[in-house]
Amino acid sequence: MPQSIDTLETPCVLIDIDRADANLKRAQDYADAHGVHLRPHIKTHKLPLFAKRQLELGAIGITCQKLGEAEVMADAGIEDIFLPYNLVGPEKLSRLRALNERTTLAVTADSEFVVNGYASTFADVGKPLTVLVECDTGMGRCGVQTPDDAVALARIIASRNGLVFGGIMTYPAAGAAPAARAWLGEAVEKLSAAGLPPRIVSTGGTPDIWSAHETPIATEYRPGTYIYLDRYQVAKGVGTLEDCALTVLATVVSRPTENRAIIDAGSKALTSDLLGLSGFGVIQGYPDAVISGLSEEHGTIDLSGSAQKPAIGERLRIVPNHACPVSNLYDRVHLVSGDHVVETAAVSARGKVE
Amino acid sequence: MPQSIDTLETPCVLIDIDRADANLKRAQDYADAHGVHLRPHIKTHKLPLFAKRQLELGAIGITCQKLGEAEVMADAGIEDIFLPYNLVGPEKLSRLRALNERTTLAVTADSEFVVNGYASTFADVGKPLTVLVECDTGMGRCGVQTPDDAVALARIIASRNGLVFGGIMTYPAAGAAPAARAWLGEAVEKLSAAGLPPRIVSTGGTPDIWSAHETPIATEYRPGTYIYLDRYQVAKGVGTLEDCALTVLATVVSRPTENRAIIDAGSKALTSDLLGLSGFGVIQGYPDAVISGLSEEHGTIDLSGSAQKPAIGERLRIVPNHACPVSNLYDRVHLVSGDHVVETAAVSARGKVE
Repeated sequence: MPQSIDTLETPCVLIDIDRADANLKRAQDYADAHGVHLRPHIKTHKLPLFAKRQLELGAIGITCQKLGEAEVMADAGIEDIFLPYNLVGPEKLSRLRALNERTTLAVTADSEFVVNGYASTFADVGKPLTVLVECDTGMGRCGVQTPDDAVALARIIASRNGLVFGGIMTYPAAGAAPAARAWLGEAVEKLSAAGLPPRIVSTGGTPDIWSAHETPIATEYRPGTYIYLDRYQVAKGVGTLEDCALTVLATVVSRPTENRAIIDAGSKALTSDLLGLSGFGVIQGYPDAVISGLSEEHGTIDLSGSAQKPAIGERLRIVPNHACPVSNLYDRVHLVSGDHVVETAAVSARGKVE
Repeated sequence: MPQSIDTLETPCVLIDIDRADANLKRAQDYADAHGVHLRPHIKTHKLPLFAKRQLELGAIGITCQKLGEAEVMADAGIEDIFLPYNLVGPEKLSRLRALNERTTLAVTADSEFVVNGYASTFADVGKPLTVLVECDTGMGRCGVQTPDDAVALARIIASRNGLVFGGIMTYPAAGAAPAARAWLGEAVEKLSAAGLPPRIVSTGGTPDIWSAHETPIATEYRPGTYIYLDRYQVAKGVGTLEDCALTVLATVVSRPTENRAIIDAGSKALTSDLLGLSGFGVIQGYPDAVISGLSEEHGTIDLSGSAQKPAIGERLRIVPNHACPVSNLYDRVHLVSGDHVVETAAVSARGKVE
């Protein structure tokens, strides 16, 4: 007899593997139909088993945000990894060199400072490092500021022993794909004119995944949250609440007043991420209940607008605002099908801050 | 030669042990001078070594918020633990019974439902469970709503085989100690009149620690964050930025524009907790720089109001808004004295969501 979720201790994370697989297939089918190449971001699940499933379905490789995540994935046998980050400091560069020896690897840079670190590390190594230029197409985070700056940095990369200029990469702000497209188009044109046509043009983001085909200049697309979805992605129209594969299972531990319920899931179980939303998640079966506040180990639910009120001892499934950081809070997650636990998996790339 | 913090990979957590110890001593000296008994909350550090130091300095026991934290502390040899939580469900009650066998333990309840769970678990056990009534004195979280309700629940606890009524407990809202004091005073009076004088009256909170002596009716005080302090506690006037013992060490990985710096510490390193503050922490040496946004692995610093602007590659020490959830994000922390690493400690009570 498989274990029922009713016997799991709370709070815990449930991953509905049927929904997750449907989400992966839907995206891969879309990508295949439009000639889009997916390189999924594993930050959402942090699980080698799902990275392998993404590759099996047709992804061309994976994306990791941290060196430590990439090392876990390489240890699990994954061979093609993109690490779109400026890696700085001798310890990280030493680890990067070791990782490059055993994988097909690419990283990014957005300054000569970062390129210099890569160059000094890889100048005397047999296998060169592939470096893409990160482009700030409107997100306001990392990245060179103009297509001309991208060309200038590409020239520097291409001139260094031990480095290969691999192309350009951006993380567009949600809903800003058209601006990113124009930016990337101009950069490709100028790079080509400079004799440095980019082999890879990488963009991404789950919020705009269904319009990825409108940026045909991109050779790779990096969605992350699409595997689980979450309340934020639902608000962005990427899927429905019924598509959300990750839920936090919590127990009502107190009903101190008519319109207040307290659950055993606080910010340590759901994160404080609001992402512009109101409340800290959606409770399945209680659409009008509002998770109005979180302390570390308590979640406060306002039932004043909810005709149905959960009883003390009742177990609730919550779709969090943001699935990715929730994965980072748990040592393990329960993979479930319907109400049964199929497997309990260690989140092996969790907590890889370095 | 001790290791310098300059060689540590980032992001990482540094605990200044001299500041931490000074914070502990200052609070214990205050408590000793006023006859206040401290029962520190270990949620802030999640480290047995600091729990032991707190006891060594004079704490009468420790407080844990989760059963899993308490188990870690008991494994480390700590014998007197208060677990102010409604523990619900057969798995937790079974673990609670095992923990009670090997420690001096007390828990809380705020409903007959929770008491019934304890009673059914401990009715046939040799060693009874001590249960305190949790009181909502204004925080709006768990707790019975009136002193009369506290008496009613105390009666139920006292009537059950296997349970001992231990007293009353509250977590007052920050700055609301006077209201809590009045509430507790009325409850003690009514409990005494009912023949159930509370042995323990437990209150707490670092924000109001320096006025703990103004609630002499309390027999125990549970401060947590006082060991490290953080930006929120500084805003509440508990200490100064120079007293803050926990910092996150981060590296500037990008300087894409004149007034923007990007560090390798995002919400996975600093948490998204704002606690009503503006910005996600204070950077030592850059008081006018604003950590204006966090994504999971990037922190965005707005330098428009800062004459000094950190260079790419520079390492920054950040006092976070809220120290406790930061401890929960890291498998290990570096204990430092000045700029040298004294010890790297596993955060053994991290991630104990259950």
